[in-house]
Amino acid sequence: MTTRRTFLAGSALMGAAMSVSAHNHGDKHHGKKDELPRLLHHVFFWLKNPDSEADRAALIAGIKELAAIETVRAIHVGIPASTEKRDVVDNSYHVSELLCFDDVEGQNVYQVHALHEAFVEKCSHLWSKVVVYDTLAV
Amino acid sequence: MTTRRTFLAGSALMGAAMSVSAHNHGDKHHGKKDELPRLLHHVFFWLKNPDSEADRAALIAGIKELAAIETVRAIHVGIPASTEKRDVVDNSYHVSELLCFDDVEGQNVYQVHALHEAFVEKCSHLWSKVVVYDTLAV
Repeated sequence: MTTRRTFLAGSALMGAAMSVSAHNHGDKHHGKKDELPRLLHHVFFWLKNPDSEADRAALIAGIKELAAIETVRAIHVGIPASTEKRDVVDNSYHVSELLCFDDVEGQNVYQVHALHEAFVEKCSHLWSKVVVYDTLAV
Repeated sequence: MTTRRTFLAGSALMGAAMSVSAHNHGDKHHGKKDELPRLLHHVFFWLKNPDSEADRAALIAGIKELAAIETVRAIHVGIPASTEKRDVVDNSYHVSELLCFDDVEGQNVYQVHALHEAFVEKCSHLWSKVVVYDTLAV
């Protein structure tokens, strides 16, 4: 990662509405950490053809295009991590998408956005199951 | 939010290992957005006593203490958001916890950390079910 990219990451996030703990002064290693935008939209996808690298790549590429929607503050596109196998860990999904919004209204704008509709049209044949969690910071 | 807090949010995140799209130059409203730390650990809790406000508050308070663990880069503690009800949305959980790490190693440090063990000891009687998703950025 270049210094320039790190700077861009920091400055762009500074422009988003961040919820920051009132305890977060001084040495961050001994206080609370920064919180994320308040509304998280986390989606887990199970592919119809889990062995198809092409299908997985097409879904990942499709999700990444959602980042261009104005109300999306941050995005994470992932696959199951190689963490310790435990009963409570569900690593059966194939691709995950986390989109961060300032609030429910930002997520509503996304739901009906032309880019989101185009994504569903283009990619929904790729998955057999989707589970969504929408969670608001407390 | 004060300007100072906004600055702290930005500067602290600049210290974390952020994955930033190579496309993310210039006007961020027309390019890809910043990504989050690479390893997300998202946990959904179902309370034993969902009607107990005290139990919910105790769990939320317990989770927030995990933010002090050094490898935790960012944290979001939430409850189900009032988004549109759809078949694919699971809003049956009661409390969610998203912890962001730079990598799997950071999450491994967290798993065996004394503060995490203290949280499990103190709070595990509060929940009846936990589902965990660990996801690595692609």
